[in-house]
Amino acid sequence: MPTTLELLEEHRLFGGWQQRWRHHSSQLGCNMTFGIFLPGPKGDTPPPVVWCLAGLTCTDENFAVKSGAQRVAAELGLVLVMPDTSPRGDEVPNDEAYDLGQGAGFYLNATQEPWRQHFRMYDYLNEELPALIAASFNISDRQAIMGHSMGGHGALVLALRNPHRFASASAFAPIVNPSEVPWGVKALGAYLGEDREQWRQYDSCLLMQQAAAQLPILIDQGDSDQFLADQLQPERLEAVAQQSGWPLTLRIQPGYDHSYFFIASFVEDHLRFHAQHLLA
Amino acid sequence: MPTTLELLEEHRLFGGWQQRWRHHSSQLGCNMTFGIFLPGPKGDTPPPVVWCLAGLTCTDENFAVKSGAQRVAAELGLVLVMPDTSPRGDEVPNDEAYDLGQGAGFYLNATQEPWRQHFRMYDYLNEELPALIAASFNISDRQAIMGHSMGGHGALVLALRNPHRFASASAFAPIVNPSEVPWGVKALGAYLGEDREQWRQYDSCLLMQQAAAQLPILIDQGDSDQFLADQLQPERLEAVAQQSGWPLTLRIQPGYDHSYFFIASFVEDHLRFHAQHLLA
Repeated sequence: MPTTLELLEEHRLFGGWQQRWRHHSSQLGCNMTFGIFLPGPKGDTPPPVVWCLAGLTCTDENFAVKSGAQRVAAELGLVLVMPDTSPRGDEVPNDEAYDLGQGAGFYLNATQEPWRQHFRMYDYLNEELPALIAASFNISDRQAIMGHSMGGHGALVLALRNPHRFASASAFAPIVNPSEVPWGVKALGAYLGEDREQWRQYDSCLLMQQAAAQLPILIDQGDSDQFLADQLQPERLEAVAQQSGWPLTLRIQPGYDHSYFFIASFVEDHLRFHAQHLLA
Repeated sequence: MPTTLELLEEHRLFGGWQQRWRHHSSQLGCNMTFGIFLPGPKGDTPPPVVWCLAGLTCTDENFAVKSGAQRVAAELGLVLVMPDTSPRGDEVPNDEAYDLGQGAGFYLNATQEPWRQHFRMYDYLNEELPALIAASFNISDRQAIMGHSMGGHGALVLALRNPHRFASASAFAPIVNPSEVPWGVKALGAYLGEDREQWRQYDSCLLMQQAAAQLPILIDQGDSDQFLADQLQPERLEAVAQQSGWPLTLRIQPGYDHSYFFIASFVEDHLRFHAQHLLA
């Protein structure tokens, strides 16, 4: 089936446009939606792109509606791409739990039944969607990536495995060591099976030890985040970074929790961090 | 029943706090929720307050989650109060339509059955909730008010009837002349009955002609708003203002629609407008 883009919504926002599109994904075998923010024109240069990956239970709309990122993206002349978090639809397997199945794709390529056929978010975000967006919008190939929680995991994994594709990466409250925390052990076990060797390609702490090249990373973490101690523990990634001299900044933000209110409070810093590397 | 406040949620946000509270309203005869943003401390002076009234189908949460107003309120040292748009609950009358009943209180005191007992949002916002908030939070009595759509109507009506209570008023895409547009004719007829003399106390165009004192008003209106021609027509209020030398600024924003993306794009201007009058 040829890929066609269907415009579902369009809103003027901070002098640019927030759009929501639907397309058929051959990787995922289902229809998918994504959001994109296109800043107002700033000269003739195609704008660079920041990918924004959302967390468990989210769709493409959470970041678009709640983060407030478009204000800063408009000022800096950045395109924001906001994908969904999993394949969707009646034909796509699901699970009653919020942390497995639809809304919980974990940005990997599943190898196990019943997930194997549709749950290929890694290839979707590494190949199919970037190619579709490059072919459909006037954008630069200068790109950065950020994400929240499970989406922070996705952003870090994509960046660590493709350090030349992205100028920089950042995350809010990311899952950095999924092989060792309950969310990750459950998801990696279900999607990839019990052979933990397969899990390494989706574990940021392990990937950083083997990365082909470095890129700057910024992480913000609230110290009142209910998931900090059991699921997140970003100091594990900071320790790996320190061992290898990796340019990673981890900021602990006092009193902040896991919500989009936390993201909204610091997204300006993240976009300025990316702009510094994208526009250099 | 003594009024007690129950804290439902609290999130750190831009150095301040976004809270959600529940209380029993004696005016409305039901439990109500409201949101409040408390900026971080700025010296010893209690901060001024901006009331934020939402539109049809909204709750106290829309403005809190989608407007992005807290960033600017934190910078300026303003408290934001975000009330619900109607009485709520199984015991409260409702209607299948989105523009009548729960979520559609129109900021008035109903006189007709079945609405009369609970739908008293005017008195709730003019008396009960301000008193509760003044008694419960360390705030200034310097206050301003703004709102969106039906909430823009509510903000203008409260300000025009109480010009000494508010330093300034503003609205995004407000209903300014409800006596003459379909949303208003339906709601005023249902809540107040067919005697149009009763409608005058909730019609900004008519109230402005009789107001006891003037206060500065700012209105933003998108020219791609789907409700502009049939329901809003803010130029009607601008014409009344021009007749009486009222300090009203109406800005038409090209390409913007009726959504919270429109509010987010211009809420900074509104809060700076209010701060100019509140902090003068």
